[in-house]
Formats: sequence, structure tokens, C-alpha cells
Amino acid sequence: MKKSLLALAVLGAFAGAASAQSSVTVYGIMDLGVRSTDNGNPLGRTNGIESGNQSASRIGFKGVEDLGGGMAATFQLEAQIAADVGGTSNTAIGSQNQTFNRLATVGLQGAFGKVDLGRQTSVIQDAYNAIDPFGDGGIAGITGFFFNGNQLSGDAGRISNSAKYVTPSFGGFTARAAYSFGESAGDTGANSSYGLGAAFVNGPLNVQFGYHNRDTSAQTLTTTPFVQTGEGKFTFVGATYNFGAFKLHGAYADSKVQTGTIALPLSASTKYRNAMVGVSVPVGPGTIMGTYAINDNRSAADSDAQRISLMYSYDLSKRTNLYTGYVRTSNDNGSRISLAPAAPLGESASVFTVGVRHKF
Amino acid sequence: MKKSLLALAVLGAFAGAASAQSSVTVYGIMDLGVRSTDNGNPLGRTNGIESGNQSASRIGFKGVEDLGGGMAATFQLEAQIAADVGGTSNTAIGSQNQTFNRLATVGLQGAFGKVDLGRQTSVIQDAYNAIDPFGDGGIAGITGFFFNGNQLSGDAGRISNSAKYVTPSFGGFTARAAYSFGESAGDTGANSSYGLGAAFVNGPLNVQFGYHNRDTSAQTLTTTPFVQTGEGKFTFVGATYNFGAFKLHGAYADSKVQTGTIALPLSASTKYRNAMVGVSVPVGPGTIMGTYAINDNRSAADSDAQRISLMYSYDLSKRTNLYTGYVRTSNDNGSRISLAPAAPLGESASVFTVGVRHKF
Amino acid sequence: MKKSLLALAVLGAFAGAASAQSSVTVYGIMDLGVRSTDNGNPLGRTNGIESGNQSASRIGFKGVEDLGGGMAATFQLEAQIAADVGGTSNTAIGSQNQTFNRLATVGLQGAFGKVDLGRQTSVIQDAYNAIDPFGDGGIAGITGFFFNGNQLSGDAGRISNSAKYVTPSFGGFTARAAYSFGESAGDTGANSSYGLGAAFVNGPLNVQFGYHNRDTSAQTLTTTPFVQTGEGKFTFVGATYNFGAFKLHGAYADSKVQTGTIALPLSASTKYRNAMVGVSVPVGPGTIMGTYAINDNRSAADSDAQRISLMYSYDLSKRTNLYTGYVRTSNDNGSRISLAPAAPLGESASVFTVGVRHKF
Repeated sequence: MKKSLLALAVLGAFAGAASAQSSVTVYGIMDLGVRSTDNGNPLGRTNGIESGNQSASRIGFKGVEDLGGGMAATFQLEAQIAADVGGTSNTAIGSQNQTFNRLATVGLQGAFGKVDLGRQTSVIQDAYNAIDPFGDGGIAGITGFFFNGNQLSGDAGRISNSAKYVTPSFGGFTARAAYSFGESAGDTGANSSYGLGAAFVNGPLNVQFGYHNRDTSAQTLTTTPFVQTGEGKFTFVGATYNFGAFKLHGAYADSKVQTGTIALPLSASTKYRNAMVGVSVPVGPGTIMGTYAINDNRSAADSDAQRISLMYSYDLSKRTNLYTGYVRTSNDNGSRISLAPAAPLGESASVFTVGVRHKF
Repeated sequence: MKKSLLALAVLGAFAGAASAQSSVTVYGIMDLGVRSTDNGNPLGRTNGIESGNQSASRIGFKGVEDLGGGMAATFQLEAQIAADVGGTSNTAIGSQNQTFNRLATVGLQGAFGKVDLGRQTSVIQDAYNAIDPFGDGGIAGITGFFFNGNQLSGDAGRISNSAKYVTPSFGGFTARAAYSFGESAGDTGANSSYGLGAAFVNGPLNVQFGYHNRDTSAQTLTTTPFVQTGEGKFTFVGATYNFGAFKLHGAYADSKVQTGTIALPLSASTKYRNAMVGVSVPVGPGTIMGTYAINDNRSAADSDAQRISLMYSYDLSKRTNLYTGYVRTSNDNGSRISLAPAAPLGESASVFTVGVRHKF
Repeated sequence: MKKSLLALAVLGAFAGAASAQSSVTVYGIMDLGVRSTDNGNPLGRTNGIESGNQSASRIGFKGVEDLGGGMAATFQLEAQIAADVGGTSNTAIGSQNQTFNRLATVGLQGAFGKVDLGRQTSVIQDAYNAIDPFGDGGIAGITGFFFNGNQLSGDAGRISNSAKYVTPSFGGFTARAAYSFGESAGDTGANSSYGLGAAFVNGPLNVQFGYHNRDTSAQTLTTTPFVQTGEGKFTFVGATYNFGAFKLHGAYADSKVQTGTIALPLSASTKYRNAMVGVSVPVGPGTIMGTYAINDNRSAADSDAQRISLMYSYDLSKRTNLYTGYVRTSNDNGSRISLAPAAPLGESASVFTVGVRHKF
């Protein structure tokens, strides 16, 4: 269609069309609101208009092509937006900015399931997003910002240079597997990661499991072999049950993170355990959501934390809603969990927001 | 629509559609032409093909959702483009490039007026754009590049982390107010700005007023309070009257800019006064536009400047036109106003351009 | 259309439309696959999922407006994508990232031919792309990565600040000319380039010629005149003939590259000669493509190279295909041609890939 349009143009023969067809859907979310943050800074609170209070602001392009025989080709490109300043990611990877930092995939799907290549969510993040009442992104997302030592939230929960496979549904059961290449010369394992996941969705019940294993390696010179300098093992299991009048959410996570250097590989180890209970309740033309979560630092004394998150989303339409939310984190003397930047050790941190989210 | 498409895809049941619907309008301007610049460089003129001679090149995404009851939700993302090299802004704000540097907003509108959050034009720039015969961007825009000490043109005329409110029209009269958060810990005023504006549009008459107040603050350490190091106060008033055969334009601006350091807050002060008279005349399938403007530097002797701008826009269609323009700035011995880079002190500067502008 | 939508929104009168019309076509390619590269690194092969194995991944926006009388206005913006990581170009040009690094043009076309301004392919790259069986981008493209000392492949084959003219077809014959401004103060020739090309396309025969001349200049201080520090002269001629059952491809290129410094202008000179023979054969629902090419370094002994490229593209639809490819480069003791990074001197380099390409 596009090429024929251009060809027609060259011939100087036009239909005078003011519109153009495309196989691409442009979509996204704009989420902006006033946010007041007390992260324990002795100067006081910081107030502002911030992006991504309920959901990360984003713009994307996607399409589906029917290949016949029950098969389809898909693509998706999705960029996170700092809508308060008009920003996109400038994380540098070689001669690239990671503009499409949320998704950059091409995939094939059919009776065999779905395979995607590119940059995409890890399977453990797929499990997070299906359980957390606050869903994907936003400041109240307990699983994203609080679980697993905050090592897998946001961009850290996404994997580049990767392949992911999701099975078809067998009576509500699906399994997922993903592998991210480390692309390290002479050592396929170096800097690679893999994940395994499973889900069971049937009527009111939704059970999700995810595991993520990450290798970190470095080399002294480009001519010397890679040495493992870190490893992370992350497990997540969660469930929701919809009773109609309300929905219960629960999750548990276990993490073991080892860090080191080329000289002292895997010298340090930190273990975390997390648990969350939550509820979401339809109220009027909207939903009240709340979670309570704990972080149990098993490698250091007096370093645990608790967090409570509350939000009310008031729907103006299916695509647009107002929201107000409150998140409070209580840190033990050795803990400093907050929304970035980190709170001083032992300080509690809280954030309040009111804003609007528009899906397009 | 988008989600159902994807859901259909997963089920392997397609309509074989080659097109996709979207609630998003992709729009923009491509403006490229030959430009010859004499900015007083002793080596001589610089010739090239440049972007944004008549209007800034840009690409944007926007949408409007009807919420019923006379209300609507809107969003807009707009990136300026250096179309001569294929560039977008790399201004860094934390881990972000300010790609959508012109607009990143979500808004609600109804009988109460319109509220927008995000990055947007200041209300003083809204007034500029409604009076200047050369409108938004471009090299001939006398108000944008010349008025108010050139401190509010282009990106400088836009405000991040902001809320803007525009009233409904009361018999042609509207008012505007905007506030941009400074987002400085413990000091809400530090680095904030605000603006107030008003407009009266009735038949051939268009009157615009805008005021912008900007605070600049800094802190020695992240633990010490902010100290005010600068302030800008900018006032603009202008009007146009359409006589049919031609349209008159006039504007006046007053500016007071104070700068300093943490050690010597607000030590220096500069005052400017500006005036502009202009005309736009429909001629054939196009328009001739011209302005004459002065910059009166009230804080330094022999530092004034005058500028004359001329442009002819020849319409090939409603969306596409050819143009040719000439801008000449005469500087006193202590002035160096030019298009960037600045002219040597006292040198006159001129620029000539011919090109094409296409709106899509 | 877009403005009237917004105007309606301000009036609070909506049609409740969930769709929006646009004159813009969003298009692109997502090409991702497993790639295994042996570039002579003594540590061994590098394996990964890479973007652009058959064609460069990209996203673009374009449109055509009928101006009547056989004339049209066109625009195009096209960004290359590193789809494996979600990246776009961060090449900095002043305050810009070269996001739309492939194309940023506005043009007019009619009975006189077509003129485009902005950033676009050089005319020698237009000739490459029409002859190489592997076409535009991708790792097997012999002309792009191997010919002309690899000085004109990818971004290097594109010209910013440029004007290009293509004649109408006279019985299958077209000519092309392009000029890229150097935009150097007081010296129009400094850092400029120009190109001349011609094509004859008639039935099964396609003949292409392209010439590119590039000046490199520098100045000691911004106040001293530019001095020429380099020059490149590149010639390409190629042809294809379609016998129906298969298509033959052949090309020859000649290059002279001079480099120097301000102190020693044009002190060094390197000459290359290249030749390629290739074939593309429709096989089943796809195509087998192969080329054999040589690089004759005429300025250094024992520094030649040969390359063989093979690829099979299996079509799932007109827009989507699977592919597998193999490229092997044999270097003489003084040559180190590879896919980036360069092979050690005298080492052979090979790459194997299998993946999927989806056009949207």
C-alpha cells in the first residue's frame, strides 16, 4: 500500500487522498499528576508534576499480520516517556540510545504458541504484572519496586538480545521460557540470563510463577577470558482470586544475589525474602487498590522494611481515569528503601499523588 | 481495539485485515531550504540547507477522546526535528533525552475550560505566537528570537513539570495561568516559574497579554538549602487587526533579568524594552509578511539593536508552500544579536533563505 | 483534519469517534535473528540475537500530497533501529541525536522529476541498492560492507544538508545528482560532497552508475580559513539481468581515498578496486541469493580480500519471511575486513545467521 502510494506519486497520478492506510497501530499511555515525596531528606519534601504515578507513560507502535493457517506475525516497539519533561531514555548501548526501552520485538504465533525475539519483559516480570493490583509500572507497584531487592523492576525487568517462548493454553495452563544472550566472545554463558515461568488462569483464579537467573561477567582485557563476577537467582510465586465483590492478591518472592570482582569472584552474597497481600475492590465507577508488603533482608540484621500502598482509580471512560494514591515505606535502621533517590538509612519514606491517566 | 486485535491474534483467528485503527493522529511539519547566513564572521558567509526557516520542523502524535457531557481527554507529544540532519533533541535531563521537547501533555477540557499537565508552551509564548506574523518558530519570528532578551524563544519558552489552565471564552475573552514546579527538595519556590495571560479575540481584532516570572536557585551541597541566584520578569502585550486587504501587527515587551551566584545572589540586573510593528498582506496564492522591531537595552549604553524581517509564502496547497525570506539585524557597538551563533559586537547580521514547508 | 478535531474538542462537541484520520503512513522493518560471528577473536565465536541480518530494522513516517497538475509534495522520516536492544542512533550533531538517521526529507515531484531536501541516500548508494542481490542493509550486502573501502556503507552512504534531483524516466533512462553542503564559514567547498548517477531500466535489464566525491576540511581556529585534509573519489557501475529462472548480478567499483592533516594536507592515498558477481534464484516460496566479491588494495601488497555471501529467504507472506545466511571473508596477511569489529590482520572471518524479517 505504502509503496504503491509512492509509485503513484512518481507517475504523477494521485487519487487526491488525504488519508493513508497503515498496518500499524500507534498506542500508549500518558500518566501525569502532582506528586509530593518525603524520602527522608532533612531539607523537606519535594513537590512536582511527575510522570508515571499509576502507570509508566509510554508510546508504542505495533501490528499483527495474518499469515493464514492460524499463524500470525507480530511486531511491537514501545518507548517509555518521562511525560513531565518530554523525555525518552538516553541509556547508551554502543552507538544507540535505548529509545524503545520497553519493547522491541518481532514474533511468530500459531498453534505451537508464540515466539518473540528482541527486547522484552522477562518471564518473572510477566508474573509480577499479572499479580500486582497496581499492574505495570507506577509508584505503588509493590512487586516492581520492592520485591527481589528492586533488582528486576522497570528496565531491569526487561531483557535484550533475547528469545521468549510462551506455550498455548492447555486448559488454562501456560508455560514461558526466555533466554537472553550475553554476546561475550568465546563464552556463551557470560552475561547471559534465562527465565522460566508458568501460569494457571481459570475463572476467578490466577496463579503465576516466575524464575530468573542472571550471570554477570567481566574480562580484564579484550583478549582474556571472561570471569564470572556476579549471579542473581530470583523466584516469584503469586495468585489472585476474584470473589466478585473484591479480589484478593498474594505473592511471595525469594532472591539470592552474589556480587564480586575479577579478583574476588562472587565474594559477597545477599538474600531477600518478600511477601505481599493485597486487595482490589470495585467502588463506584472505579477501583480501590491496596497492598501490604514486607522485605526480609536475611543477610543483615535490623535491615527489614514494610510498605503499604493505597490507590483509588476513578474512571472517566474505559481509556481515561483520575487517581489518587499514597505509599509509605517503613525502614529498619539498616534499610533505606524508597522511591529513588534512596531514603537515608532507617528513615521512613512516603509519597502522595493525584493525577490523570489517559490510554490511547 | 488494539488489545482485541492482539487477543484475536493469540487465538489464531484473524480477519486478514491489512489496516489497523487507531485513536492517534500523526502530524507534523517538514521545513527545509537553502539558507545563507552572514553573522559577521570575518571568514565570510555560511551557506547550507537548514531546517525550520519558516516554521520549526516537527513530528507529533495527538488524540482527543470524547468523555461525554461536553468533556474530553486529550494528549499530545511533539518532537522538534533538525530535518537537515535527521536529528531530535539530545538535551539530557537525568536519564532522559528531551525528545518530545515541544509538547508532552495530557489534558481535560469541558465547560470549565482546559487543564493540561506536562511540558508545554508558557502563556507568554502563547501570546507571542498569536501576534507575530511569522508565528511559531522559524528564523523571521521577531518575537521569538529578538524580544525579551531572547530568553523565552524556542525551548526556553516552554515549561516542564507544569500545569496550565485556560478559561472558556467569555464573549471572546479568555485568561490563562500556568505554574511550573521547581521540584527542589524543601523549597517549593526554588526553580519554579509561573505565568499569567489573557486574550481578547473578536472579529478582526486580536489582543494578547502575557507575563512570565522565573526563579533560578542553586544549593552548595545536596544537604544545604537552596539560595536564589536569578530571577526573570517578562511582560508582553500585542495586538493584530485584520483590515481584509492586509493585517496590522504590533507588540511591546518589557524584561528585567537578574543573575547572581550563591555567594552574590542577584548581583547583576539587565533591563530590556522591545517594540514591533508588522504587516501581513495576501498577495496571489500566498502572503507577504514583514516586521520592524527594536531592542532597547536599558542597562548598557550603545547596546540597542534593530531588526527587519521579510518573507513571502507562496501556497502550493493548504498544506504545502514555497517561501523566501530575509532578516537583517543592525547592532549598536555593544550589541551582538544574531541568529545563533552570536554576531561579533557591533556587527550587523543578515540571513537569506528560500525553501519549502510541508504540513502533514 | 487534525486541527478541526482539536477545535471541535475545545468547543466540547465531539462525534465520539474512536478513530482518527491521518495523512501519514507508519512503516518499517523488524529483522531479528540468531547470529554467530567468528571474526578471528582468539577467545572464540560470539553468539547472540542481532538486528538487521537481512535488512536494517527501521521505523518510518511518510506521506504524499497531491498538489494537482501532476505535482506532489512528499515527506519521509526514517530511523534505523537496533531491534535487539530497542535502540535508535545517538550520534550527536550539536544539540541533536541523529534519530532519523536513514531519511529526513521533504520533496516536490512532477513532470520535471523529483527534488528532495534534507538527509538522504547518496546517489552512489542508490546504485548499490539497485544491484546488490541482498539490497539495502543486512550483513550479506557485499556492496554496502565490502566495496569502496567500506567508506560508503550504512550511515556513511547518506548525506545530510543535501539536495538531490532525479530526472523523469526517458525510455527507461534516469539521471541523478546530489549536493551536500559543508556549511563551513567562508568556504562553501569545505566538507561538501557531490554525486552523479545514472540508471537504465528496461525489461530484464537494469544498469546503474554512481559517482561520489567527498571533501574533508578542518580549521586550526574558528577564525582561520579551512584547509583541505582529505578527499574521496568513489565510482560504481553495476548491472542485473533477469533470465526468469534466475537473475545475474555484476558490479565494479573504483576508489581513491586521500587523508591528511592541517600540517600535512592529503599526505596519504589509498586506492581500491572491487568486483562482484552474484545470482538470485527463485526457489519454492522464496529466493536463494549468492555473491562472490574481491577487494583489490592497490596501495599495499598482500592486502587483498575475497568474500562469499549466501542467503535463503523463505516467504511466509509478502511482508514476512524467514531467512538463513552465511558470509565468509578471506583476508590476505595485510587485510582485516570483517563485520565490525575488524578481524585481526590476515584472519578469515565468518558469520552465520537464521532469523525472521517482518515488514510493516
